[in-house]
Order: sequence, then C-alpha cells, then structure tokens
Amino acid sequence: MKFIHTSDWHIGRQLHNQSLLDDQRFVLNQIVELAKTRDVDAVVVAGDIYDRSIPPAAAVALLDEVVNRLVNELKIPLIMIAGNHDGHERLGFASRQMNDSGLHIIGPLTQEVRPIELKGKQGNAMFYGLPYADPATVRHVFDCEVSTHEEAMAKLLEQVSEHDSQGLPKIVVSHCFLDGGSESESERPLSIGGADKVSPKLFNAFNYTALGHLHGPQYKGAEHVRYSGSMLKYSFSEQHQNKSVTLVELDRDGKASFELLPLTAMRDVRIIEGLLADLLEAGKTDLNREDYLMVRLSDKTAILDAMGKLRSVYPNVLHLERTGLMSEGSKVELSRDHIKKGEFDMFTDFFTQVSGEPMTEAQKLAMTSAIDELHKVERTS
Amino acid sequence: MKFIHTSDWHIGRQLHNQSLLDDQRFVLNQIVELAKTRDVDAVVVAGDIYDRSIPPAAAVALLDEVVNRLVNELKIPLIMIAGNHDGHERLGFASRQMNDSGLHIIGPLTQEVRPIELKGKQGNAMFYGLPYADPATVRHVFDCEVSTHEEAMAKLLEQVSEHDSQGLPKIVVSHCFLDGGSESESERPLSIGGADKVSPKLFNAFNYTALGHLHGPQYKGAEHVRYSGSMLKYSFSEQHQNKSVTLVELDRDGKASFELLPLTAMRDVRIIEGLLADLLEAGKTDLNREDYLMVRLSDKTAILDAMGKLRSVYPNVLHLERTGLMSEGSKVELSRDHIKKGEFDMFTDFFTQVSGEPMTEAQKLAMTSAIDELHKVERTS
Repeated sequence: MKFIHTSDWHIGRQLHNQSLLDDQRFVLNQIVELAKTRDVDAVVVAGDIYDRSIPPAAAVALLDEVVNRLVNELKIPLIMIAGNHDGHERLGFASRQMNDSGLHIIGPLTQEVRPIELKGKQGNAMFYGLPYADPATVRHVFDCEVSTHEEAMAKLLEQVSEHDSQGLPKIVVSHCFLDGGSESESERPLSIGGADKVSPKLFNAFNYTALGHLHGPQYKGAEHVRYSGSMLKYSFSEQHQNKSVTLVELDRDGKASFELLPLTAMRDVRIIEGLLADLLEAGKTDLNREDYLMVRLSDKTAILDAMGKLRSVYPNVLHLERTGLMSEGSKVELSRDHIKKGEFDMFTDFFTQVSGEPMTEAQKLAMTSAIDELHKVERTS
Repeated sequence: MKFIHTSDWHIGRQLHNQSLLDDQRFVLNQIVELAKTRDVDAVVVAGDIYDRSIPPAAAVALLDEVVNRLVNELKIPLIMIAGNHDGHERLGFASRQMNDSGLHIIGPLTQEVRPIELKGKQGNAMFYGLPYADPATVRHVFDCEVSTHEEAMAKLLEQVSEHDSQGLPKIVVSHCFLDGGSESESERPLSIGGADKVSPKLFNAFNYTALGHLHGPQYKGAEHVRYSGSMLKYSFSEQHQNKSVTLVELDRDGKASFELLPLTAMRDVRIIEGLLADLLEAGKTDLNREDYLMVRLSDKTAILDAMGKLRSVYPNVLHLERTGLMSEGSKVELSRDHIKKGEFDMFTDFFTQVSGEPMTEAQKLAMTSAIDELHKVERTS
C-alpha cells in the first residue's frame, strides 16, 4: 500500500486579505501530478480541507476540480476527513453516495467507525478516518464521560483497536494536537488553555497515523505517527518551513517507510529586512519579487509612502513593520503579537488597553467559554 | 417510465421567523413513502432544493437523510437541479462522484448538456436537467447573444432538441417562469420588470417537462408542461392551494399521463378572521389549533395583548392584523403589501415614505440593477 498523506489544504484561505486561490490551485495541481507520477494507491487528506465551515463558492469549485482529476480521471481513491475548520455537515453531504466512486469523505462523527478498505498494488490496507471531534461532541455522540481531548481520542481509538481488520494493516487518519508538537501562528487553537493536547502514545499500536492540524511536517513519539504539514505557508511564522506531502509505503509486514515530496509555491511567503534604499535596489534583480512579503524596515527616519515605494518593486508586500523606529522591547513585543497570540490573548490585551484594568478570573473564564462557543457555532453553522 | 415530479422544497426556509425544518422532514418522509408505495422508477426535484445559497447545516443534514433513504435504502434514482434559490457550486460539489449511486445533481450550467438515462420497469427515458440560468449566465457559458429569459431558454433547449436520445422519450427538468403562470407571494422574482417570462410553447416538443419555481401545481400551454408546486405552503397567500407531488407515467408511445398525489402538512398554513372572543371560543375545539395562523381581528375596540391571548389557544399564530381598526382602503392596501410586493415595490414605498418624493426613473433603474446584482451575488456566494 502506497499513498500520499497531506493535510491542512485550507482552500479559500486568505493571507493578510490576499486571496490565495490561484496559489492553492498551483500547488494542488502538483499534488495531483505527484499522485500520478508516484503511482500511488490513494491520497489521504487529514482535515481542514477548507478554511471555514462556509467556504466561498470558488473554493468549492476548486476542490471539485481536484476531486474530478484525482478520482475520475486518474482513478486514485481520495480519503478526506473534516478538521476543526471544516463544516462537518456541509463537507459530509451525500458522502454515502460517493464511496463507490473512490471519493471517501468523513464528515460528522458517528457512533460506528466505518473503515475504508483500499486495494493497493502491493497489498491492501484498512483506513480509519476520524473527523475532528472535541470532548463535548464525543460525549454527545457516544453518551459517555470524557472531559479532555486525550480521553475523547482514546474513546475513538478504542473502536479502531477493537475492529477486526482481517489481518490488514490499520491506518488512522485524525485531526488533533499531539503533545509536544510544534505550532505556528496559522493553526487555530483547538481549545483554550492547553486541554487540547493528546499523547502520541495513543497511536503507537497502529501501522500508520496520518495527522492534520499542525502546519509544519513532523512526527511525534514514533516515526509512524506523523503530520504532513500544510500545502502552503499560511503565515509569516512559517517562512522557514519546507512544505511537502508525505509518501507512505507499507511493506508486507505492515511496516511504514516515508519520503517527503517537496511542494513548490507559486509565490513564497517570506520576511525581508533592511534599509528601504537597499531593499529597493535588491528588488530590481530579485527574481522572486512577486513573493508574498513582510518587510521590516530598519530606517530610523520618517519615510513618505514607504508601502507605495516598496510595492512598485515588490508587488505583493502584505505587511510592513518599521522596526527601525521601535525600541528593542517593542520589537520583540510586536513580533510576539504577530506570531503567537490567539484570540484570548488578543482580547485580554485589548481589554486591558481599553479599561485600564487587567481581567478578573471570572472575566477570563467568561471569555474562554465565549471563544469556545464561537468556534463551536462556526463549525456547525 | 414512472416517476414523481416535485420541486421547490426550500429546505431551511422559515415562515415569519418560524423554522419549518420539522414540517419539512414530515412532508419529505411522505414523498419518500409515496415513491416506495407507488413503486416509481425515479424522483425528480425541479430546483430550489434549499431556500438559500448557503443553507443552515441542519438543512444539509435533513437533505442528506432523505437522499440516503431514497437512493441507498430504496434504490430509487433521484435527479435534482439547482433553482434560483440554490448555490449552484455548493449544490453541485462532487456530483460526478455520485452519479453511479443513482444520485444526479445538476449544479452549475455547463456547455454540454449531460442527459441522464434512467431505466424504468415499463421502458427507459432520457432526462435533461437544466439548472436555473439567467440570460447573463447563458451568454457567459455559451459565448452567445441572448438578452431575455425566453432567448436563454431557447438556447438551452436547442441542445436538448439536437441530442440523439436513441429513440427514448425526452424529459426536460427546468426552473423558470412560464408566461401566464400563477404566482404566489413566496416565489422570489427571477428578474425585475417581467423579462423573466418564457413561452410554454418552447417545451411542447418534449415528452414531458418537469418545472419548478411556481408554488401552485399547474400546467401551461399543454398538459405535459407542468409545475408540481412546492411541497409546503410557504406563505399565507398559498392558504387555498392543495400541495401535492405529480406522478407521471409515460406509455409505450412516450405519451405522459398524470396523477396528483396529495401531501399532508404537519401544520397547515391558514388565515382566520373574526372577533377575538369568537376565535378564542372556537379554538377550544379546533383540532388544528397548532396550525400556522395569520389572524385578522375584526374587533373595533382596543385589546390588551391580543397576541398573547390568541397564542394561549393557538400556539402558532405568526401574524396578527387588526382589520377592524382599519378603513376599507387600508385593508386592501395591507393585504396587497403582504401578498404581492417584491423587493422593488417595497423599497419604492419605503423611499417615498422616507423622502416624501417618488423615485425618479434614474433612481428606479439604479435600484433595479442593485437588486438584480444582489440576487446574483447571493446565488454565487
């Protein structure tokens, strides 16, 4: 069994208000090409297919194109699970009517695990797609007592362990945050306060686990418990990541081996720093001046329309920082602002700034539950 | 070939802010039952599956249930086309992957007509599903000159006429406004100013035309060019309509015969009139007091909390009119307000009321194009 593991396509996502649809089409075409040239038996997408529960119509049309090429033209089966960004009901509509075509979408969580058996040229395998599910959802669907993400995942995996795969290797597809994983700025937290972490050990017993959620390719605990990472850089904090899909091959004993197949973006996402004059000069010969750029200007003097000047050379400057005008302390602060802060921290800052008082414990608690609720509503609306 | 023709499900629609999802599930279950007991070869839904281009998740889940029962459990093929209320890209996602299951969804308009051949116990037939398409869409897709809905439809039907159906009867499925058709308040106009009308003659040559858009069951021009009407009353102006699905049977010569199979609503939609005291008294023995009601009170005196009193007996009063307090003139005016006015008329009234001046021709033109544009954006967003 040989397949491509990818995740976090986030079709329809914007970067600093810039639509990425053309960039996404460009890299999705590469994934289709890789599936073809590497002659894989399947493509697996481990959640966050779309960026929002209600994706724009153009994003739906792009995914439709990709599905038609892979499933109808190349006859390569495609397995997709809903991630925390996806609308589970919307994504899962009519999925039972698609299965025979080779398109397998796992939308809302259901009580019974429905494994997908795929034929491979070198042997078959059983895929267990687990859509993203927070503890409340698992409690509701299974009518059981779980309060952490770890307990919820253990509950779901129990079914996988108990299922008789008729001797076939078991491949789990899941969307969660493994304890110890490296975050970047562009993943929306699964819960506030760290209760979203799941031990990698839960997945040890399976032949392979194809994970989604974290945007940098990595494995945790064991080599066969892996994140493929996103297909594009979705924030400047990912500027040094190398994006790829993971080619997974199971040998006759069900042991997995891996190869990272690099993806090339139509435009890179990167940060450039220096004096305005130097950057403008360098831009003249910069073959990649159409990249999406964050520019950090070290000039210490006022500059009229710095953004306009930069964009005349680098058309896709998305963000400008005047680091030369900041004290060392504020520079660190700003970079932390951009790179690390989630909704809760941003609101706490805002609250303190506006009210002049830090939030009380009761207020923090109210805010935490409001944010959780909003994420839930967004997922199911 | 024997099939059920239905249309204008409008799943997710509200009536005066009241969710109709339970009512819709109730009547959809009847349609499924009728398909089963009448042993039909197919069910055809002629557009406006959902009420909005972005239906609520619960509406998507309900349609998924219906599709699973019909297509997977009963093995009855289902053909659905996008109407003017539907989001074509969203509805059409992965439709190529569903066809083999017996689920046929015709989403966005494409250049080539893709007929669906269905097997019937008494003979096969060829179904031509034409999604709702305004003249601008037809111009864009076919790169041709059409400016009215009539010309646009003629262009689409040209393909149907030219297609070689191998001797099989041709059944057209379309969503449009036939000239002479009877409107009710709950259909959104296809265009402003009457340019949306299509001659029934265009459809004469086909063995049957299954139409959607108008909510009352009716035929125009010829008996085999038919609207099935909506499955529920979606406005008080439809109170006297009898809702049904149309059972269509083609004989060996391809000639169609019809039977209207009545649908029963969980709660009826109706208007009651009289003095408050009389209505409250009558309500005590009214077995249908849970119906959705518009109440017209003929009392000529002030009444404290009339709505509260009515709802203690009729829990689903959705609208109250104090006709007893109105002069004859304003009564007629009000009823026209509720029953007939589209967005344009409502805005004109509002404008006149606020500005004290009637709209100029230029202002009317601007408003017309703004409304058209909004409908277009809603359909494609």
